Amino acid sequence: MKVVGLIVEYNPLHNGHLYHYQESLRATGADASVAVMSGNFLQRGEPAIVNKWARAQMALDIGIDLVLELPTAYCTQNAEVFAYGAVATLDALGIVQQVCFGSESGDISWLQELAAQLKDEPVPFKEALKTHLNLGLPYPKAYARAASSLAGVPEELLGQPNNILGLNYVLAIKRLESSIQPATITRQKAGYHQANITDQQIASATALRKLIFEQSLESIKPYVPPSTLHILMLEKAQDRFPMSWENFYLLLTHSLTVHSPEALANIHEMEEGIEHRIKKHHPSALAFQDLMEAVKTKRYTWNRIQRLFLYILLNLQKKEMERLKQDQKPPYIRVLGFSEKGRQLLHMARNFWPYGGVAFLSR
Amino acid sequence: MKVVGLIVEYNPLHNGHLYHYQESLRATGADASVAVMSGNFLQRGEPAIVNKWARAQMALDIGIDLVLELPTAYCTQNAEVFAYGAVATLDALGIVQQVCFGSESGDISWLQELAAQLKDEPVPFKEALKTHLNLGLPYPKAYARAASSLAGVPEELLGQPNNILGLNYVLAIKRLESSIQPATITRQKAGYHQANITDQQIASATALRKLIFEQSLESIKPYVPPSTLHILMLEKAQDRFPMSWENFYLLLTHSLTVHSPEALANIHEMEEGIEHRIKKHHPSALAFQDLMEAVKTKRYTWNRIQRLFLYILLNLQKKEMERLKQDQKPPYIRVLGFSEKGRQLLHMARNFWPYGGVAFLSR
Repeated sequence: MKVVGLIVEYNPLHNGHLYHYQESLRATGADASVAVMSGNFLQRGEPAIVNKWARAQMALDIGIDLVLELPTAYCTQNAEVFAYGAVATLDALGIVQQVCFGSESGDISWLQELAAQLKDEPVPFKEALKTHLNLGLPYPKAYARAASSLAGVPEELLGQPNNILGLNYVLAIKRLESSIQPATITRQKAGYHQANITDQQIASATALRKLIFEQSLESIKPYVPPSTLHILMLEKAQDRFPMSWENFYLLLTHSLTVHSPEALANIHEMEEGIEHRIKKHHPSALAFQDLMEAVKTKRYTWNRIQRLFLYILLNLQKKEMERLKQDQKPPYIRVLGFSEKGRQLLHMARNFWPYGGVAFLSR
Repeated sequence: MKVVGLIVEYNPLHNGHLYHYQESLRATGADASVAVMSGNFLQRGEPAIVNKWARAQMALDIGIDLVLELPTAYCTQNAEVFAYGAVATLDALGIVQQVCFGSESGDISWLQELAAQLKDEPVPFKEALKTHLNLGLPYPKAYARAASSLAGVPEELLGQPNNILGLNYVLAIKRLESSIQPATITRQKAGYHQANITDQQIASATALRKLIFEQSLESIKPYVPPSTLHILMLEKAQDRFPMSWENFYLLLTHSLTVHSPEALANIHEMEEGIEHRIKKHHPSALAFQDLMEAVKTKRYTWNRIQRLFLYILLNLQKKEMERLKQDQKPPYIRVLGFSEKGRQLLHMARNFWPYGGVAFLSR
């Protein structure tokens, strides 16, 4: 069986994702698919609009055969760690031959070449990165500039978030020495950050979430498969949708209240004394949005601060992340759902599973 | 001005408390009163049924002149620490000549004698206490047995919670070498733990809370001053009453989820590996009561477990409590309310205040 791997968030699953899934099958000639999907928290450091079980069902409903959870320790990190965890999970399964991702460029060759150069983090690259960071550039911009000067790739290409993710998928494959082959297809129309809907059929997940919060759930109907809307309606009826940071703000503010700056300094990615800035502002913030506005600076991007808050919420400690980094393999594989064909894939994967022990978690 | 100190929880303030207040003035001949009152959490390890500001107003309404907060680090501890913190707060004020507490016995002399013997924790007492604890007796019972055998006091007397508190007030006075004189009056009718109402006018706070939760707020009317009922109705209208552990269960369960047993072991009074027992049972407990039932044992009394949960909720660490214990003086004095006479008391107290610096906290 020829199996393609997809790396997804599906927050929520929409027509663009359906297109990506179908094109991935077509482009790779695969006859089965495995999606590695973020759990309840996402790369930008925020809760998914609906829980992982509901989103896994959306994936199964468009035809994906097996949905695995990308462990939280990976799925809430920067592009490098996110990509590494996702590829490592697909690789650990032992049955995936190709991974196919959407990118702005739609061209795999320059990503392959650039990844080959960046793989071992050459000194000129690291020095350029450091220089740009010291000049006050936020990390993604500094990274793009340093990488582009290394390889003569236009900086604009590396400023596009799905190209950067793609680059990191290819880097992860190389670093893991995985046999998985990367492939990419061009993303359709709606940009990742595009908040306004310009097309009748395809809109970004960001735009859809905006519609849901500012208009109504029903307003996303033209842009999603029927199953997505159906599942969201069921979850809404049970008060489990839509979720946002505000649902977790009481818990966050409790954690911020009872922990000293010294304790907060042990949290993953808490650096440069920003814990003092957070402790200073949180007593007067009545909502999560207030706190974000108060804490963010030019240097600390929205996503970076959101992630910090998530690490506080989850009590993700520096020393735990260090332990995880030393481990090449993912800590576990949690199966979120499978079709009949997915059941066969699981059977094959169990035989391939190279690590031994009870690695597959059930619900 | 002759000032009497009272040590109270007022959860809520009822006719028995009114009697205690009036009798204290009569018995001591005082013309002004200061109450040291627990904050939002109480000695038994549970949240007060209503917040401290509302309870301070009840105290002012029966005529108390000045209400100070007993800092949380003291008011949620065993009788010894609770009593020490309360007496230390009154003592630090510098204007209180007597403290008057209710007790089952109503006799100060045997408490004075016993305290004189226990003050330096003589070896025979400590050994007897250890023996009884090792036999599996809960701490209050073991303490009563050891103290009674030391002084020839009937064990029953020391099994009564207000006698034990009284003993600890006298002990604290001796240990602080305070000039405050202790006095006691006999408690009226309703026992501390008595849950059924046997009298038309006086009922215990426990019985009143039971009435509130099982019947209605209005049903406590015969047993409380009119102001108590009025204040509780106002707080209820603002959804701030009645509070119970269930209101804090989400926060507790979040803390239990994100902290490892190793981290929980740093919490004040977490001993003998009970953190593992807590971690084991909490995932299946849907409410605070379920968790309590699952965790408690013969050795770990209800109050002790409740206090442990409170220390987890407040993230009260062993090392912080050690720091506090090394300090003879209370960490702060927070004024919760005062009458016109109370304002004069505050003025006098500021002049007496022996520690310097900004010691009085405002709201």
